Amino acid sequence: MQRRLRMAKHSLPLSEVYRLLEPGPVVLVTTAWQGRTNIMTMSWHMMMEFEPPLLGCIISARNYTFGLLEASKECVISIPTVDLAKKVVACGNTSGRKVDKFKAFDLTRVASASVKAPRVEECDADLECRVVDTKMVAKYNMFVLKVARAWIDRSIRQPRTIHHAGKGVFVVAGERIKLPSKMK
Amino acid sequence: MQRRLRMAKHSLPLSEVYRLLEPGPVVLVTTAWQGRTNIMTMSWHMMMEFEPPLLGCIISARNYTFGLLEASKECVISIPTVDLAKKVVACGNTSGRKVDKFKAFDLTRVASASVKAPRVEECDADLECRVVDTKMVAKYNMFVLKVARAWIDRSIRQPRTIHHAGKGVFVVAGERIKLPSKMK
Repeated sequence: MQRRLRMAKHSLPLSEVYRLLEPGPVVLVTTAWQGRTNIMTMSWHMMMEFEPPLLGCIISARNYTFGLLEASKECVISIPTVDLAKKVVACGNTSGRKVDKFKAFDLTRVASASVKAPRVEECDADLECRVVDTKMVAKYNMFVLKVARAWIDRSIRQPRTIHHAGKGVFVVAGERIKLPSKMK
Repeated sequence: MQRRLRMAKHSLPLSEVYRLLEPGPVVLVTTAWQGRTNIMTMSWHMMMEFEPPLLGCIISARNYTFGLLEASKECVISIPTVDLAKKVVACGNTSGRKVDKFKAFDLTRVASASVKAPRVEECDADLECRVVDTKMVAKYNMFVLKVARAWIDRSIRQPRTIHHAGKGVFVVAGERIKLPSKMK
């Protein structure tokens, strides 16, 4: 698919972050440590608290990102849409130990405001995160992250996020419906 | 929407469970304790391990289900599709303290094979779960569940699951794409 022109991303109130992650999109995780940056593909994450937004995620100790995250205690969660699906899969198929994925897959680093890990220009939204709890790392490879700053391209009204159903099958976000919910 | 005729549900290998939860669908959680059953709506969950399948979920201590789950240490995670959206929202808008939701919303209890909590006939898939770790309950209201048995209606090829984007907005699962992924 053609890359679309990126409109400027604006700050998103932290109280709205759950609306991006709760639907379960595949996300990209960027990290930076001692001059190296990396980017990985992740689907095992969940919201844990609305505000400040906390999220839990599972990152295998086999992944290069695991060590970078343990050392730097920071990352950015960026949310891609279906036009980036091939690059998202490519990031999942390769290791940052061998490849500079930003360069290899023509993804653009943008400096974050509050962490060293870069945002991803091609994604619609980025969440700058700090690791706030590592107690579940040893047993479950689970990190608890607090979102410090959030960015969104508000020109994208209905982002066509992708949701991994295993073995390279992705469900693309379809129609949106609204029901009279008392849920937040 | 018209209720469709339910085909028989068959046993799903536990190694395939992640393919149901990883895309981030809204799920129903049933519990049973001392003759009471309940059903709640949940979106804050993630896979934690492939096999045996472990999942983490956040259940507010304000929810009636929280106490039933703490006491019984068992639940069923059932996965609805868009034809059930109104009932799913109704389950989220009411408390089991006051209402028998199965009765009020015309949902059908089916006996589980390995837990006392019932499966939901109207859902395409059910995961019978046991609480295996409560260490994160005090701080995060987070339960770790192990899936003991899984059931699926295999006549549904592309389930139109719903994914909560906040404030009663649901993204419905759309087209499926397949890419050459090395990811499981």
